[in-house]
Amino acid sequence: MSAARKKLLLNAFHMCSPSQSWAGMWTHERDQCTGYTSIDYYVDLAKLAERGLFDSIFFADSIGLMDKYGGDPAEAIRAGAMAPMNDPTLVIPAMAQATQHLGFGVTANLTYEHPFLMARRMSTLDHLTKGRIGWNIVAGFVESGARAIGLDRLRAHDERYDMADEYMEIAYKLWEASWDDDAVLRDAHKRIYAQPNHVRRIDHEGAFFRMSGVHMCEPSPQRTPVLYQAGASTRGRAFAARHAECVFLTTSEAPMVRAHVADIRRQAEANGRRGDDIAVIVAATIITGKTTRQAQEKYEDIRDHLDVAGSLSVFSALAGVDFSKYDPDDPIEYMKTDANQSFLERVTILTKGRKMRIKDLTAFHPDSPTSGVFLIGSAEEVARQLVDFADETGIDGFNLIRTVEPGGLQAVVDLVVPELQTMGAYKTSYGSGALRNKLFGRGDRLSATHPGLRLAKAYAQEHPPLRP
Amino acid sequence: MSAARKKLLLNAFHMCSPSQSWAGMWTHERDQCTGYTSIDYYVDLAKLAERGLFDSIFFADSIGLMDKYGGDPAEAIRAGAMAPMNDPTLVIPAMAQATQHLGFGVTANLTYEHPFLMARRMSTLDHLTKGRIGWNIVAGFVESGARAIGLDRLRAHDERYDMADEYMEIAYKLWEASWDDDAVLRDAHKRIYAQPNHVRRIDHEGAFFRMSGVHMCEPSPQRTPVLYQAGASTRGRAFAARHAECVFLTTSEAPMVRAHVADIRRQAEANGRRGDDIAVIVAATIITGKTTRQAQEKYEDIRDHLDVAGSLSVFSALAGVDFSKYDPDDPIEYMKTDANQSFLERVTILTKGRKMRIKDLTAFHPDSPTSGVFLIGSAEEVARQLVDFADETGIDGFNLIRTVEPGGLQAVVDLVVPELQTMGAYKTSYGSGALRNKLFGRGDRLSATHPGLRLAKAYAQEHPPLRP
Repeated sequence: MSAARKKLLLNAFHMCSPSQSWAGMWTHERDQCTGYTSIDYYVDLAKLAERGLFDSIFFADSIGLMDKYGGDPAEAIRAGAMAPMNDPTLVIPAMAQATQHLGFGVTANLTYEHPFLMARRMSTLDHLTKGRIGWNIVAGFVESGARAIGLDRLRAHDERYDMADEYMEIAYKLWEASWDDDAVLRDAHKRIYAQPNHVRRIDHEGAFFRMSGVHMCEPSPQRTPVLYQAGASTRGRAFAARHAECVFLTTSEAPMVRAHVADIRRQAEANGRRGDDIAVIVAATIITGKTTRQAQEKYEDIRDHLDVAGSLSVFSALAGVDFSKYDPDDPIEYMKTDANQSFLERVTILTKGRKMRIKDLTAFHPDSPTSGVFLIGSAEEVARQLVDFADETGIDGFNLIRTVEPGGLQAVVDLVVPELQTMGAYKTSYGSGALRNKLFGRGDRLSATHPGLRLAKAYAQEHPPLRP
Repeated sequence: MSAARKKLLLNAFHMCSPSQSWAGMWTHERDQCTGYTSIDYYVDLAKLAERGLFDSIFFADSIGLMDKYGGDPAEAIRAGAMAPMNDPTLVIPAMAQATQHLGFGVTANLTYEHPFLMARRMSTLDHLTKGRIGWNIVAGFVESGARAIGLDRLRAHDERYDMADEYMEIAYKLWEASWDDDAVLRDAHKRIYAQPNHVRRIDHEGAFFRMSGVHMCEPSPQRTPVLYQAGASTRGRAFAARHAECVFLTTSEAPMVRAHVADIRRQAEANGRRGDDIAVIVAATIITGKTTRQAQEKYEDIRDHLDVAGSLSVFSALAGVDFSKYDPDDPIEYMKTDANQSFLERVTILTKGRKMRIKDLTAFHPDSPTSGVFLIGSAEEVARQLVDFADETGIDGFNLIRTVEPGGLQAVVDLVVPELQTMGAYKTSYGSGALRNKLFGRGDRLSATHPGLRLAKAYAQEHPPLRP
């Protein structure tokens, strides 16, 4: 039955930083991530991922360094833990030029940029990549970013999502309603580049935003980028069920993941979408080799390069908790926190029945509660566990977390990918069309059932173009 | 004496649009600018410019399409006149990867983005290009951009410059004072990526901005990008004399240019800078061939592809005047305008003693008052006129305006550049180091006499790092 098996999606998770979730891995002698300031570094990474038929390289990002831990980013900077952090949008077009099929996800935070500007950047990226761009919608999580641009605090969590809904409404109108499909003629003889009777201004007056203007870009292959979202809170899930086409999870608890997948598909259907309009992707750390023993040796060789204070400084910012104030041996339950909602929801479930200490939160081992799936094993073992986890939970794929790179990714490409292919659980060549069609096989454009497209179509019908 | 002659600077002026200042040129059968959505287009352009030893490709940009003419961007869109317009920052790293020496200027408007975010994008570009980035500082000129992001109008002209001064102050602190030169260790053995005792937070409370945060990027080759500015108004010149390292002019009147050059150098010296710390670059349209006759034939072949309404729609936005309301044969003096200050200053001088009609404003001919220097001739003739103009005015180089491309640029590279080299008026190989050193030969970093560097050094002395 392997031919009919659902094919797993694979993304490589990256960031324009020396090290990422597993802080300090740049200190390993085989790690090359201190090259993160060079464009060649990203081009090589893209070629490697495309050799492995990865669906995309996915860039995390944050505005503001991680400064919750100890009240400043000193430990993050010392450890090279998501610090420094360059702007990821700028590396993508060069990676696209060096590849043909690989997709690119980019995290962009809607707290910091007006939708008119963000929509233009995404359309430009979609043009330059020939329809291979995805956008990870973030509504802001680190307070250092808010302070950096002169805001005292981020908005309350739920209000942020209300703002995000309105932001998306404007973005859909710009991407889908400002230029009709037949707007661009490029008719040199008639001297008509585009027809003003097929272009309309987007006027918006809402609770959080207002704008009036024509989208600056002609329609790109996908128009709306593939939409990703990672919010795990209740409000975040509702947002994802309405907007997202790919949802990221970072937990390894299969029952929790299965419940989340069922919930998100059910909510999507309640929004008039198909359950499988949303792909659910789980974070995974993979350490693999030709044999179980080789994988174990790699793990032992890597393990001690984890920077504990660096990791906790990242995790403090994510959780909204200053872990420097606690003894690393304190059990998690005893913390009095101002942690964000999704973190509290997760900790509540994760710690049930377990004695978890603060220092366990970022431990580099398979029981780590915050790393997603963590696998150490031969390629065959890893492939089998990935497939089993997907079968058990109903997820669609995995987002590979950086360890010692590019070696970690290379081992997956060279060893695990062929195993998955043998099992019929992974594609043997890229699909056709834009990133969206490669992922879902139902066209390059936003699905007809997507609320954003319905909203934009209604706007276009109600608003005349620039010229009659 | 040719060996000692000052070498002219040459930039290719571009934009991520089908056509630019000379609107409609994309309709010529040899023009390839409808490829502006593709990354290959930009990579080819970069290779061509580097073959010609150009100092940089310089990208114009604007937030908001040109909608002054007739009250909407319909004619601009119809003509493909700076419409559509993609985001130029995104094409630069791929162009940098395909070249070794070429610089890249990018226009970024400080009205729309907090300096913390802009500083990060520029630092990322400076890293990715290995120190070949320049920033054209724009304080906002098209009202459509303000409306697009929900502001009713742009601030008053002079107030915009006050805001721009404060914006630059923050930017200098982020680029020059947040990370010391010896902050980044990358010492894997000691597990120190960077030393928190050499990194400081930038705190700022001003009339227009406030912020608190560490710059997100480690020091890039130039730290501060090479600073360009094009404001021709009195207040714009004062701003340029304080901040700019390259100043753009768009007039062809030699006496006016000479006076402007003298004024800007004098003002720079009043700010404690050297007069030649600022390079003055004049816009130029060049149509050249192997012979005078061939150039003239090219001109005649191109001429009628100018789109008059498209050009006027661009010019209306630049001038702040809706030219659609006037008869094209009206003399300019009779207009009652709400034109912006620098435009009024220019028109006052340009029309002195001349009968200029509205339709002359954007005419594609050597007497055009708005195109900068406009030359038609053999390579030898063009080279001689460029050198004479520079000698007469004291300018440092030229910014080549797109005509029918890439053929227009190619002709300059293949024909005019060798002539200039023969005259000793153009480099025969690139200089060393970053863009700034290539331009001025006094190091990769901001000059010690630059007010921005002095300000940042004072900030660093007065503010302790994150750790003692």
